[in-house]
Amino acid sequence: MARHVFPCPLRWADMDAYGHVNNVAFLRYLEEARIDLMFRLGSQEGGATFSGGSVVARHEIDYLRPLVHRHTPVAIETWVSDITAASMTLRYEVRDGERVYARASTVVVPYNLAEERPRRITAEEKAFLERYRDDGTVVA
Amino acid sequence: MARHVFPCPLRWADMDAYGHVNNVAFLRYLEEARIDLMFRLGSQEGGATFSGGSVVARHEIDYLRPLVHRHTPVAIETWVSDITAASMTLRYEVRDGERVYARASTVVVPYNLAEERPRRITAEEKAFLERYRDDGTVVA
Amino acid sequence: MARHVFPCPLRWADMDAYGHVNNVAFLRYLEEARIDLMFRLGSQEGGATFSGGSVVARHEIDYLRPLVHRHTPVAIETWVSDITAASMTLRYEVRDGERVYARASTVVVPYNLAEERPRRITAEEKAFLERYRDDGTVVA
Amino acid sequence: MARHVFPCPLRWADMDAYGHVNNVAFLRYLEEARIDLMFRLGSQEGGATFSGGSVVARHEIDYLRPLVHRHTPVAIETWVSDITAASMTLRYEVRDGERVYARASTVVVPYNLAEERPRRITAEEKAFLERYRDDGTVVA
Repeated sequence: MARHVFPCPLRWADMDAYGHVNNVAFLRYLEEARIDLMFRLGSQEGGATFSGGSVVARHEIDYLRPLVHRHTPVAIETWVSDITAASMTLRYEVRDGERVYARASTVVVPYNLAEERPRRITAEEKAFLERYRDDGTVVA
Repeated sequence: MARHVFPCPLRWADMDAYGHVNNVAFLRYLEEARIDLMFRLGSQEGGATFSGGSVVARHEIDYLRPLVHRHTPVAIETWVSDITAASMTLRYEVRDGERVYARASTVVVPYNLAEERPRRITAEEKAFLERYRDDGTVVA
Repeated sequence: MARHVFPCPLRWADMDAYGHVNNVAFLRYLEEARIDLMFRLGSQEGGATFSGGSVVARHEIDYLRPLVHRHTPVAIETWVSDITAASMTLRYEVRDGERVYARASTVVVPYNLAEERPRRITAEEKAFLERYRDDGTVVA
Repeated sequence: MARHVFPCPLRWADMDAYGHVNNVAFLRYLEEARIDLMFRLGSQEGGATFSGGSVVARHEIDYLRPLVHRHTPVAIETWVSDITAASMTLRYEVRDGERVYARASTVVVPYNLAEERPRRITAEEKAFLERYRDDGTVVA
C-alpha cells in the first residue's frame, strides 16, 4: 500500500559527453532502488531475502527530461504493480518533487543461481511485495 | 533494407556478482551499436551526422538468456522500424548465431544540445535511416 | 588543517564476478570524494570553483583489504599533501572506522577546457586547498 | 621477451562531461588487457590459468595526453617487469603508434577466492609470465 522512496545518489561520471546523466545510468539507479527494496528492506521486514539471486526479464523506461549531476540525491519511488507465481513487476518514478525525470518498469524473476534456473516466489516474499503493491497509477 | 551488424566486444567487468553480464551492460551494448550506426556509418555513408546530439526517449528490452563474459564479441543486429518527423525507432537483437540473448528497441530524438531542445530529422538523416529500415520483424 | 570526510555510497554493481568491489570502482569513489571537495565545498567555502575543468595527471593506489557491497557508505578521508603553481596532490584513505580498505593519491592539474591546456591555480583555489592541507601522514 | 599488444575498443560512454575519456576508464582498459593476457593467453599458451581468482594490490598510472572517443581501438602494450613468489608486476603503455596516452603498472596477487586468501604463483604461471618479461623500460 506504500511506495518505497529511495534517495539515489548520483555520481559525476554518470554524465556523458553531452553533459547530461547518460540514459544507461538511469537503469543503474533503478537497480539501486530495487536492491534497496529487495535486499535491504526485504530482509529487514521479514525474511523476504530473494536470496540465491534474481534476474531481470524486461525493462521499459521513458525519459521525460534531462538530468544533470548534482550533489543531492534524486528520489526513486518504487512500487509493485504485479505479482505472479514466478515473477514480479516493479514500477518506478525518478523524481525531484514534482519534476519527473523518468518512468520505468522492470519484470524481475527470482532465480536459483546454483541451479541456473528460475524459481517460484516464496510466501514470505509475496507477503513482503504485497506491502508495496500499488495499482492506481499507470506508467511507462 | 539491411540490418546493421555490430560486433560488440564485452568487458570482463560487465559481469556482476552473479557471474553474468549485468542487465544494465546490455543497454551499454545497444548504445555502442547505435553510436556505430549513427556516428560512424552515418557520416561515412552520406552526411547523416546526427551532429549536435541526440537523446534517448524510450527503451524496451527483453532478456532471453544469460550471457557470460567471453573474449569474442556478440553480434548486435540493428535496424530502423519507424521514422517520424522528429524521432526514429531502432530495434536490436543481441545474438550469437542462432542464440538470441536480448531483443530491444529504442526511440531516439535528434537534439540540439546548444539550444537544449529536440530538432527535426534532416533529409540526409532520413535517407540514411531508410537504408536500415526493416519492418518485417516484430520484437520487444 | 582538516581532512575532508566524504561518505561514499556504494552501488551493488560495483562488485565484479568475484563478489568484491572491483578495483576500478575505488577510483570512481576517489573521484566522487574529489568532486565533493573541489566542486561542492570549493564553491561553498569561498569561490574556489576549479571551474573550466581539471584533469588527473597521476594516480597511485594501494588496496589493503577486500570490500563487499553494503547499504551504508564507506568514509573517504581526503586531504591535500602538496600544492604547486599548477598542480595539487590529494591523498585519501577509504575506510570504515579503523578498517582501511585502500590508500591513494592523485595529482590534479587545473585545466582550461576551452583552450585545451593546463592553467595555474588561482589565489582563491590555493587558499581553499590550504585548509585541507595535512602533511603528517605518508601514504601510498 | 615479448610485449603483449591488446587492441582495446573504446566505448562512447567512457567519455565524461569534459568530452575526454575519463581517467577511471583507463583503469578499465588496463583490466581488459590484463584479462586478455592472463585468462585468454594464459590458458591458450599452457595452463597458466590464474584460476580461482587474482586481486589487484596496487596501481600506478600517469596520464600523458587526453584521449577522445574513436571507433578504432587503442593499443595497450603489456609486459611483466617483476615476478615474486606470490605477486607479479605488469606494466602498460596505452598508445596509438608513437602517441602515448598513459603509462601504468599494476601489482597483481593470485588469490584463492574460495579460501579468501592470497596464494603462490604456480610453476606454469611463472613460465608463462616469463615469456612476457621485459626489464628494459622504466615507466610510471
